[in-house]
Amino acid sequence: MSKSKLRVLAQDDQAVCCSPMVREPLGEGDAIDLARMFKALSDPVRLRLLSLIASHEDGEACVCDLTGPFDVSQPTISHHLKVLREAGLVGSERRATWVYYWVLPTALARLSSLLQTSDAPTGVGAR
Amino acid sequence: MSKSKLRVLAQDDQAVCCSPMVREPLGEGDAIDLARMFKALSDPVRLRLLSLIASHEDGEACVCDLTGPFDVSQPTISHHLKVLREAGLVGSERRATWVYYWVLPTALARLSSLLQTSDAPTGVGAR
Repeated sequence: MSKSKLRVLAQDDQAVCCSPMVREPLGEGDAIDLARMFKALSDPVRLRLLSLIASHEDGEACVCDLTGPFDVSQPTISHHLKVLREAGLVGSERRATWVYYWVLPTALARLSSLLQTSDAPTGVGAR
Repeated sequence: MSKSKLRVLAQDDQAVCCSPMVREPLGEGDAIDLARMFKALSDPVRLRLLSLIASHEDGEACVCDLTGPFDVSQPTISHHLKVLREAGLVGSERRATWVYYWVLPTALARLSSLLQTSDAPTGVGAR
């Protein structure tokens, strides 16, 4: 229920922001907000965590699925997951022993739209 | 001539990487490379600079067009432009007095594809 609400809010945000940045200059407020999200993506372990969660069966992953592939400690993984959550890129919920994570698709779609060029999806074209 | 070559190389890169991260887990090497590009986008002034360049008439902007909108010094703008260039997001060329910048569309398209969800382009859908 609360997750659906979150998704609706994210969709509203997306309606306000962002058209592709190649179309019009980005406003100061949007830039601050978006830079925070890109900062969360600026670490290789966080990017791989996000991708592991996003591509996981059922679209969600238990924190117990997320430590194996990395050569970093459990507290470090937890810290990275917190950064992703605080940036609005993933949602999480504790169920019994484990915390489960899922990607918030509207957040990814918002960033994806922002970076679309007029030549998307192939990216081929004149500058 | 050299710019066309750059674009062809970037397209080849894109063919290797990246399918949407929701489809399959991102590899370690790609994650390092992509995190570096996202880091360049993790600053509000850099995001606005990139957007100003991308949305500028003719798709390129003189450095003389890029200082006015910002409340930071010329050396700071130059530093940010250097970060964008080193991350492979913009190209540049000196012509007489001024340096001109343009966005490398394949780089933006690569990041945009990576972040696409199965629900793109609307971003509406279940997790």
